Amino acid sequence: MREKVTITEVGPRDGLQLVPDPMPTDVKLEWIRGLFQAGLRDIEVGSFVSPRLVPQMADSAEVVRQSLLIDGLTVYGLAANMKGAMAAYEAGVQVMVIPLSVSDRHSRANVNKGTLEHIEAIRDMIEWVRQQARPVRLDVVAASAFGCSVAGVVSLEDVVRATRALDAAGADRIVLADTVGYAYPSLVRDTVRAVQDAVGTRLSKLHLHDTMGLGTANALAGLQEGIRHFDACMGGLGGCPFAPGASGNIVTEDLVFMLERMGYDTGVDLPALLAVRERMQSHLPPGALRGGVAAAGVPATYQARAASATA
Amino acid sequence: MREKVTITEVGPRDGLQLVPDPMPTDVKLEWIRGLFQAGLRDIEVGSFVSPRLVPQMADSAEVVRQSLLIDGLTVYGLAANMKGAMAAYEAGVQVMVIPLSVSDRHSRANVNKGTLEHIEAIRDMIEWVRQQARPVRLDVVAASAFGCSVAGVVSLEDVVRATRALDAAGADRIVLADTVGYAYPSLVRDTVRAVQDAVGTRLSKLHLHDTMGLGTANALAGLQEGIRHFDACMGGLGGCPFAPGASGNIVTEDLVFMLERMGYDTGVDLPALLAVRERMQSHLPPGALRGGVAAAGVPATYQARAASATA
Repeated sequence: MREKVTITEVGPRDGLQLVPDPMPTDVKLEWIRGLFQAGLRDIEVGSFVSPRLVPQMADSAEVVRQSLLIDGLTVYGLAANMKGAMAAYEAGVQVMVIPLSVSDRHSRANVNKGTLEHIEAIRDMIEWVRQQARPVRLDVVAASAFGCSVAGVVSLEDVVRATRALDAAGADRIVLADTVGYAYPSLVRDTVRAVQDAVGTRLSKLHLHDTMGLGTANALAGLQEGIRHFDACMGGLGGCPFAPGASGNIVTEDLVFMLERMGYDTGVDLPALLAVRERMQSHLPPGALRGGVAAAGVPATYQARAASATA
Repeated sequence: MREKVTITEVGPRDGLQLVPDPMPTDVKLEWIRGLFQAGLRDIEVGSFVSPRLVPQMADSAEVVRQSLLIDGLTVYGLAANMKGAMAAYEAGVQVMVIPLSVSDRHSRANVNKGTLEHIEAIRDMIEWVRQQARPVRLDVVAASAFGCSVAGVVSLEDVVRATRALDAAGADRIVLADTVGYAYPSLVRDTVRAVQDAVGTRLSKLHLHDTMGLGTANALAGLQEGIRHFDACMGGLGGCPFAPGASGNIVTEDLVFMLERMGYDTGVDLPALLAVRERMQSHLPPGALRGGVAAAGVPATYQARAASATA
């Protein structure tokens, strides 16, 4: 039995967010179904934010509703405030993803609230969700946990303080996000250790970007500290609104290749995932998709190994 | 005092090898001088192979001679056979880089000799060099040490056997190369450990490619096993002749970013290196240069850290 590592595919949410032309709902659903068929069982499908600010996410309620028909899929949706939480709950999300910036300055710039004040607002969201009839898993994302384009360095003390407060506020799971992509392996190691000391296994996932070309190195550092859940984007879709030209999320295909070759079980069929990527290419801006495995092809040795693993 | 990590810049050799139009000698030298000024003290500047097969390297003797005028630079040149070794010595290389494929099938396809037979030819080259008046460091590269596009899996036993034989043949240093880019972190760890057990500190360097997007992750794995010397290419130049569209060597700028942020001293001035890259862009095919740091820019936090480190 190989040890499992879970990948949450965030392409349809984080990946699309910076793609200017809205993708038609049926194309999104074709994509989500393809990802599921390739073995991805956790997909962040949309975001309950102002359709005026992010027109690309205006159909999120419909995308969630249709995604719920895929038997075996866990449907994630992002909610940034109480109104979003209500809409996400109403649509039927199974996991509500709630972002918080642990950089106080970034938080003020973003939501007009400091980090601790914003945690109070998140506590209200959590309490509201807990009062509803249907249980929803609440994943709170400690964004800018490895640095911030506004404030620069984010101290480990600030990260620990914020995650302790999120734990106390009732978050089911805490995610550390390298929102702008400033993380490096020893910082990932130190931050994960400090947050594990503070909130234990409540820390469950890393959300990494590939801004500096260190995405897989940072994932490896997290893996070595016991992290067994990562966000990733097909083709590394997305980017960073604070760094024009910067790469987006870590590439699902490359992460799958690394993890499977290291002996972990991601449940993902890599050739099937590459076929989904191929089919989606025409629906995305030219050059939006990147990644090593897709360019080089899956080596014959990978196939042989997968075959012997299932034999 | 920060611990030092050495980067050998291989752009002018491995990087250029797949660029079809020969780069003028004076442009190569401008590039090499720029790299040196940015802090790179080890540069592989050319290759003593048939100019008919690799026209790009036809001026290597002249490039070596001019590079030797740069005070403080260690000049590396590649030699694949006795004729090349004589020409490289004649030109004045300080480090002679000698490739060997540890994949027997790949070796036969490449040089019409099996791995062990090729080691005998390398022993002759080493003995010839040792008989000359001027001392030359001999770095033998165990290529395809992490897999091979011809034979697929390369066994750890084959890698260990080849490196032991290279040690016995008198190599000064042994380099493990992921020629096609099939390596993954746990394989890097296992291979480095096995080769260290066999030849100790004779193993000195890793040559990694970014084919599957795992370049920095693999470098991290090597670093964790005590490797303190890496090859890299400005802009990740190069590629893999066996995998069209595949990425090339690991990106010097991204590797420098990772190492410096982790507290190692590479001696490289990252903004100066980015400026060299910028100046060289027009001399290289469009899109040949890639990398995270160059696209995103050096974050302010990096500068602050470098400043405080020298303060």
